[in-house]
Amino acid sequence: MRIALDAMGTDEAPVSEIAGAVGALRDYDSGLEILLVGDQKKIRRELSNHADYPEDRLRIVHAPERITSSDSPAAAVRRKRASSIVVGIKLHQEGEADAFVSAGSTGAVMAASLFFLRRLPGVDRPAIGTVLPTATGRILMLDAGANVDCKPQHLVQFAHLGKIYAQDLMGVHRPRVGLLNIGEEPEKGNELAVESHRLLQGEKTLHFVGNVEGREIIRGACDVLVCDGFSGNLLLKFYESVAGFVIGLLKREVGHSEMGLDFEEVFRVLDYAEVGGAPLLGVNGISIISHGESSPKAIRNAVGVAAQAVSSSMVKHISRELALGVDATEGVGKD
Amino acid sequence: MRIALDAMGTDEAPVSEIAGAVGALRDYDSGLEILLVGDQKKIRRELSNHADYPEDRLRIVHAPERITSSDSPAAAVRRKRASSIVVGIKLHQEGEADAFVSAGSTGAVMAASLFFLRRLPGVDRPAIGTVLPTATGRILMLDAGANVDCKPQHLVQFAHLGKIYAQDLMGVHRPRVGLLNIGEEPEKGNELAVESHRLLQGEKTLHFVGNVEGREIIRGACDVLVCDGFSGNLLLKFYESVAGFVIGLLKREVGHSEMGLDFEEVFRVLDYAEVGGAPLLGVNGISIISHGESSPKAIRNAVGVAAQAVSSSMVKHISRELALGVDATEGVGKD
Repeated sequence: MRIALDAMGTDEAPVSEIAGAVGALRDYDSGLEILLVGDQKKIRRELSNHADYPEDRLRIVHAPERITSSDSPAAAVRRKRASSIVVGIKLHQEGEADAFVSAGSTGAVMAASLFFLRRLPGVDRPAIGTVLPTATGRILMLDAGANVDCKPQHLVQFAHLGKIYAQDLMGVHRPRVGLLNIGEEPEKGNELAVESHRLLQGEKTLHFVGNVEGREIIRGACDVLVCDGFSGNLLLKFYESVAGFVIGLLKREVGHSEMGLDFEEVFRVLDYAEVGGAPLLGVNGISIISHGESSPKAIRNAVGVAAQAVSSSMVKHISRELALGVDATEGVGKD
Repeated sequence: MRIALDAMGTDEAPVSEIAGAVGALRDYDSGLEILLVGDQKKIRRELSNHADYPEDRLRIVHAPERITSSDSPAAAVRRKRASSIVVGIKLHQEGEADAFVSAGSTGAVMAASLFFLRRLPGVDRPAIGTVLPTATGRILMLDAGANVDCKPQHLVQFAHLGKIYAQDLMGVHRPRVGLLNIGEEPEKGNELAVESHRLLQGEKTLHFVGNVEGREIIRGACDVLVCDGFSGNLLLKFYESVAGFVIGLLKREVGHSEMGLDFEEVFRVLDYAEVGGAPLLGVNGISIISHGESSPKAIRNAVGVAAQAVSSSMVKHISRELALGVDATEGVGKD
């Protein structure tokens, strides 16, 4: 399997990307190849700092342009055809790569994915899925920011997308799907939530467990949590900051070493690098979006997410799920 | 000053209420009187467990009925006229009390406040303001759940309500008003956020500092944070749970005593009991809503919030602010 990795995405590019790629090649079996997409000279120079990696499984694909966060995503994707994001996505579109991973501009990765890979039939709005750590494991929340204004039917589609991701990549047998809301009862919430609840209850192929409140997320009340991208993005960013704040309070109060406490170990469960990348679900392909501040470990894990999505045939499963979802008759689609 | 306190609100009523009332009378000067509203017999029995409180400053007002969380709020307020919530709010409406505090059904307190106290001119939707602890102090977030579907002009009104609360009760001179959003730029966010941003920029009497992202809340990026009640309630409940989760992780890992660490002291800043009560802002009166699980300390502090709102003439200041806001010409309303 071949994964195209945007080498120019992080703030420290291509340092984290190359260290992450080398790590991924060591981690995964010899079936994995990585295409490093970006400025050839910079990649070569950075690669010279690494020794002892399987050179035959690491190729460079030159892409001299770079889309930055100050570019307008859609315009940049149209104009900067030699950018690492466009070149990488096109490698995937043309079958040269089985997936694409980037820590570059989220908007540009989304725009390029929609433009070149296209939406799968039955998907109106592809969504970003983010895996959040909880007290009991992990929860996939979507949409985490791709669609700020949603209609109820979009949330139903997110539920089906999330179901397949949870099955294929999180190993959950019959994923519990929850609706993010501010109360347990079906009539609670805003107009979007009330109508989404009604529609989700009617989906025979989903294991819908009802509304999930903010406080229930951490308790692991479901495996897949659907919401509009505005709410999802709010929660995601708030989560990161609250966890950091609480840890900071503790450190300030007692000092790391005095406590004889390994903070990193305690809070490993909160470490986003453990997950590495958020998939854009609903496009005809595998497009994984990583944080702009990704560490080598985060990149390595994002490549791992992409590899798992490829080997589990996630896109095929999503296609089948959505096709069934649209024309579903009872009993069909139980996998 | 006289404050009506719903004695039947918490899950353990009237235990927390009475302990909280006794604490408040001890804390505050002799100008404070409390009217305990609820089942006379139960209140008397619980009061007998307390000694050494100023009996002349604590009166019982009998209210035999009780509105529970399973009641429909609006219907219950119409039907249960002898409930502690309705009796307490009417004491305030009729001038027998200067404020009302309840840890009972939030919906019922809101419904009774709207029905009997009425909205102030210029306020379409009263909002619940919640004070969140941050790394640098406190932030007032509103709406925290009264209005799940909002229009941009409602958020502008929330901003004015919050400005006065921050001035009068948090002692902030020129409160920085932020709009909860998922990006810094004015064009970011959903339709509500984009249009609210535009309107807020045009408000000459507000110190609008722009969009505030989830991660900026904890950093104390503003004093007043406006949002729709759906987003606000999500964040509020999530905040509580993430903080608790992180603390729980630590405790599990290292055990309380071993660390020689006083968790309660470290996390005092995260303790909601420190604030005690959330005001319903925009009604013609002072109505403070406390958590159903309020401790005596939380009740005591909620009474303190009510007392501060009375002594600072908050309602008069809100009236003036809103009247100016509606007919504002440049330069007017600078206080």
